[in-house]
Amino acid sequence: MWGSFFMVNKVKHLITIDDFYEEIETIFAMADEFCDKYELWDENKESIRGRIERCNNYILASLFFEPSTRTRFSFETAMQRLGGGVITATEPGSTSISKGESIADMVRVVGKYADIIVIRHPWEGAPRFATKYAEVPIINAGDGAHEHPTQTLCDLYTLYREFRGDSKNSLSKAIKGKTILICGDLKHGRTVHSLVYALANFGANIIAYSAPGLELQSHVIRRLESDYECLVRSFDEKNLAVDAVYVTPSKKPHQLSIFTEAEIKIQITFRKAAKEIDALYVTRLQKERLPQAAKWNGKAYPVINRRFLSTKRYKSARILHPLPRVDELSYDIDKDERGIYFKQAAYGVAVRMALLCYLLELKKGSEYSQRNQLTEDEIFSHKRYPLYSKNPKCPNQTCVSNHENKAKPTYWVISERPLRLRCVYCEWEIEKSTRTSSYKTPELKENIKGAIESKKS
Amino acid sequence: MWGSFFMVNKVKHLITIDDFYEEIETIFAMADEFCDKYELWDENKESIRGRIERCNNYILASLFFEPSTRTRFSFETAMQRLGGGVITATEPGSTSISKGESIADMVRVVGKYADIIVIRHPWEGAPRFATKYAEVPIINAGDGAHEHPTQTLCDLYTLYREFRGDSKNSLSKAIKGKTILICGDLKHGRTVHSLVYALANFGANIIAYSAPGLELQSHVIRRLESDYECLVRSFDEKNLAVDAVYVTPSKKPHQLSIFTEAEIKIQITFRKAAKEIDALYVTRLQKERLPQAAKWNGKAYPVINRRFLSTKRYKSARILHPLPRVDELSYDIDKDERGIYFKQAAYGVAVRMALLCYLLELKKGSEYSQRNQLTEDEIFSHKRYPLYSKNPKCPNQTCVSNHENKAKPTYWVISERPLRLRCVYCEWEIEKSTRTSSYKTPELKENIKGAIESKKS
Amino acid sequence: MWGSFFMVNKVKHLITIDDFYEEIETIFAMADEFCDKYELWDENKESIRGRIERCNNYILASLFFEPSTRTRFSFETAMQRLGGGVITATEPGSTSISKGESIADMVRVVGKYADIIVIRHPWEGAPRFATKYAEVPIINAGDGAHEHPTQTLCDLYTLYREFRGDSKNSLSKAIKGKTILICGDLKHGRTVHSLVYALANFGANIIAYSAPGLELQSHVIRRLESDYECLVRSFDEKNLAVDAVYVTPSKKPHQLSIFTEAEIKIQITFRKAAKEIDALYVTRLQKERLPQAAKWNGKAYPVINRRFLSTKRYKSARILHPLPRVDELSYDIDKDERGIYFKQAAYGVAVRMALLCYLLELKKGSEYSQRNQLTEDEIFSHKRYPLYSKNPKCPNQTCVSNHENKAKPTYWVISERPLRLRCVYCEWEIEKSTRTSSYKTPELKENIKGAIESKKS
Repeated sequence: MWGSFFMVNKVKHLITIDDFYEEIETIFAMADEFCDKYELWDENKESIRGRIERCNNYILASLFFEPSTRTRFSFETAMQRLGGGVITATEPGSTSISKGESIADMVRVVGKYADIIVIRHPWEGAPRFATKYAEVPIINAGDGAHEHPTQTLCDLYTLYREFRGDSKNSLSKAIKGKTILICGDLKHGRTVHSLVYALANFGANIIAYSAPGLELQSHVIRRLESDYECLVRSFDEKNLAVDAVYVTPSKKPHQLSIFTEAEIKIQITFRKAAKEIDALYVTRLQKERLPQAAKWNGKAYPVINRRFLSTKRYKSARILHPLPRVDELSYDIDKDERGIYFKQAAYGVAVRMALLCYLLELKKGSEYSQRNQLTEDEIFSHKRYPLYSKNPKCPNQTCVSNHENKAKPTYWVISERPLRLRCVYCEWEIEKSTRTSSYKTPELKENIKGAIESKKS
Repeated sequence: MWGSFFMVNKVKHLITIDDFYEEIETIFAMADEFCDKYELWDENKESIRGRIERCNNYILASLFFEPSTRTRFSFETAMQRLGGGVITATEPGSTSISKGESIADMVRVVGKYADIIVIRHPWEGAPRFATKYAEVPIINAGDGAHEHPTQTLCDLYTLYREFRGDSKNSLSKAIKGKTILICGDLKHGRTVHSLVYALANFGANIIAYSAPGLELQSHVIRRLESDYECLVRSFDEKNLAVDAVYVTPSKKPHQLSIFTEAEIKIQITFRKAAKEIDALYVTRLQKERLPQAAKWNGKAYPVINRRFLSTKRYKSARILHPLPRVDELSYDIDKDERGIYFKQAAYGVAVRMALLCYLLELKKGSEYSQRNQLTEDEIFSHKRYPLYSKNPKCPNQTCVSNHENKAKPTYWVISERPLRLRCVYCEWEIEKSTRTSSYKTPELKENIKGAIESKKS
Repeated sequence: MWGSFFMVNKVKHLITIDDFYEEIETIFAMADEFCDKYELWDENKESIRGRIERCNNYILASLFFEPSTRTRFSFETAMQRLGGGVITATEPGSTSISKGESIADMVRVVGKYADIIVIRHPWEGAPRFATKYAEVPIINAGDGAHEHPTQTLCDLYTLYREFRGDSKNSLSKAIKGKTILICGDLKHGRTVHSLVYALANFGANIIAYSAPGLELQSHVIRRLESDYECLVRSFDEKNLAVDAVYVTPSKKPHQLSIFTEAEIKIQITFRKAAKEIDALYVTRLQKERLPQAAKWNGKAYPVINRRFLSTKRYKSARILHPLPRVDELSYDIDKDERGIYFKQAAYGVAVRMALLCYLLELKKGSEYSQRNQLTEDEIFSHKRYPLYSKNPKCPNQTCVSNHENKAKPTYWVISERPLRLRCVYCEWEIEKSTRTSSYKTPELKENIKGAIESKKS
């Protein structure tokens, strides 16, 4: 879309899914090679087996400051199947962080040992902040409720393998125009955030079927509109029997011709798209991100089971789930051939192998110097929006800028009127209505104006 | 004994020691090869050293939901000495389990990454339950107080290496007729349970010298009688100076001729067997499995030291211990050549290397499909007992059937009159006397009858 | 100095830095080979990259009973870049230690799996105690506040690489006469203890610039005087503007000629040495070792920043830090070419690779027997001081002798009048003034006398 090729100090990182739109096809082609050309994909077991000596000289550091087994295992398996080494820290309390070390120092030191770093962190934007200091590629394996881009790569790769057909269509052709129903906790799920942006980018139609109270957050919707030029509409159509939000990327020419038309036409298109669901993406309730006091009414949570899937609409729908699941996806789908969530987990290894190779090979070719650190402005200037880097503080309490001294509040000015600032770390948005007095100072106004003008020139 | 070759979905697992009686000789022959033919056994250091590239293409997943270093290290060493990779989870609280994931999903997903799974779990029967879903071999590395079959393989292999003589007798010949004194906490020790069954199976005489109150549980004794046709007698012989239970496998022809005789003959045989102890298997007090309120009188716990071993009876007894030890085995034995417990730990690596190779090679050759899941009945029907799979609940609170929804109460009907049911997961036994009203319903009677009849046909 | 080649059971260990003075040059030559000859040192990234197959047959056990990521990662990286395997335990609470196992058994069993053991432990002297039982090399990765000798190897190697010049001088030539300012918490820092001894040994001048209340402990200073024949003086020189202690090794002939002169000469030499600081070694406040009640006045802690370094004295000073840092070393030095602490971290991998190779190759060549355990006396008799191994208990509460039954109180008699005993485990010193009645018994006097005489003969 915009210049998404995101490099800091000439090292490429994967922090948010939009860092990678241009490279995804390359990554998937590499994953295909591992699966098909090198025959690592075992058709019987539906998983990657064997080893290919591609990263013998490399070591992966796994830094998991939040609970995880699945994602960590997937990366460590990928690295070992490439012949590489792994060093792992999984104990948030027993690392040098507990001695007061900053993320900045941590990634610089670990980058002296390992050739590539995978990081999961409770602070949103922490991996982005880390890129300022890292001399080796950083991969975001989940930062709070923000993003989880490698999960999205796995999800997309699964859809691509399912939809590319015998003629092995490209990713774009495989995804464009498909209708994906995303279901469950759309508010807290970081996998959901990364996924809807990517689906929008590649031209899929999205129907959001959320549990009540756990809808897609308004800033995500606004971003779909502003960054991806999507049309977002709410529906309560009887035929669908779910309270859904409908998202369709409007920027694609053939869709634009439809969607710039009147509301009634959208309805028609929606009905058409909703008639046949190509894939259903089910997510669990993210209990660990609910406010402590919240008692969530489990009964209202959408449950996908054989009965739900018995209508014609879902006849050939693929059922995906990032796992782990709790009760929202019935075990009776496990033997249903539409349920491909375990295969989806297995594809994750192939995708991560490709990702590791891609980032490591890039690194090998690049020359950079430790001394040549970028300013925060330089890091974030690859987006098309002007930067603004003074007050206020980010209102997201888990944003890295509220925890790390060196992560100064910095925003993209998404729009000037109404004022809309997006935090460069956690990507929360601040609007005019936000009751922070600092928004009303003339200084802010002036600064933003300056930022916008310098971007234009 | 009965068809112990235990496969689910055409994958072979090791869950309880009786899954493996038929294969033990094969495993030991492979372990011998690693030690002797490939010269990995270092005579000076009495341990496995070096590496042999046999499992380069394979990855082992180590899932330890209970504290352990020793067993985990032994497996991870074995896999790495075979050239394979390892992924490890040791943090019970920080895995996807804490997000509410079932064991069923866990093993299915981990099986998409790794080629073989070692699991230690506090719920008894959890590894057995896991086999229903696993597409890759599962090895039980200890499930609560139930079984720890790989420890038993190490114990047996140590006895075999010690007793096979210069003519390199077979396992059966090496073990048959040997007298093993098992000593300490025989109630809670899962290593003890696996071991006594295996010793009975291979024809050793067992003398049980328990700490008071920590005797072999009655269901273990009953099982020795019913499954292994052992004669079990209590003794309080002055000469032995211990309160011992004597177990001898009666099913072997040459023994049957003796033991079907009158009680006095048993006494004679016992005295003869007890005259010379071939091996002493010492175990620690399993503090972590004692009820919280229990105050155990440490002084009454049998302590094996140089003085204890000074009588003629123990002159050539090998001293084994699964380790870790606390105070029950004196350090003064460490330099005594009868003490072979560190060598025993070292043999564990050779045995586990053999086990990994054996299970992985099997897997390679087999073809199975994820979709073709077995029913619980199919999994458990390899035993000679009829299955009964309705109420009641298993009375063992740590049984997996009391924690996992999908693990439905299922029993083998060991005998009808008196009623004796054995839980297929944790192998606790329920007797007529158990005060559960459901045992008295006509429905139960009918169901059990049906189960028995269908087994016969 | 004295026979520092420290072997137990014919296995060489690295427990305190003075075990290794004779071998350091060999280790550094090997590290140089890895960096330069095998071209693993990447000049752009200032770190070790790639892999060299030297330890394929070996497995490293990482036993970390105190929080660490950095040191553990450095060792595990080193082993994997040598092609070797790693087994890791990082969970103090969830190991067999929690089942009551002794350190003695732990290292014996782990030594049956792994070929070399790295241990970090909260009990001071625990790694030394472990050598009594270990059949494989033990490396101390930090024992309480006692020593951290591999950090010192990294520090020295960094100084050596910086100071050896184009003619590639030897370590001794590179270090001798250099002036090193050591700064921060000199009381609790175990890295500081190992470092000052090593610097004294190789003839550097040391200026100690401590935070108030966190001065070098008197037993460290006494040891510099008694073991290294250093002159230690306190200064409060205006020019230096810090409250410094000055240490210079007096045993070197050319220095002796100066320092046996009057105090005034020392002053002159000090001023000369202090005129140009060759290296500044900055350390953080060791919060985790402060008494719980202690409130430390953060403002008084010396902070090294650009302003501090702006005087001529520091013009070409290298800035080192063992990391992690907190606030004592300003981020504004990161881009200053004098700041080499990240490179220092990177050199750690090269040094540890050399150390692993050195200890493993030694082991390979040696022959030893498990049975042939040394007595404590034999282990500790390699020092020039007489041994005394009865009461009293070591006053250091975290000394291993106060936690492990088998670690009997043992002391070197450093001097008889005044009485000075040094614990062989934690190296705390007990003086005459220590109020323990047992010091005054005639028995003690007799015993010590006997110890001294038997040493002489």
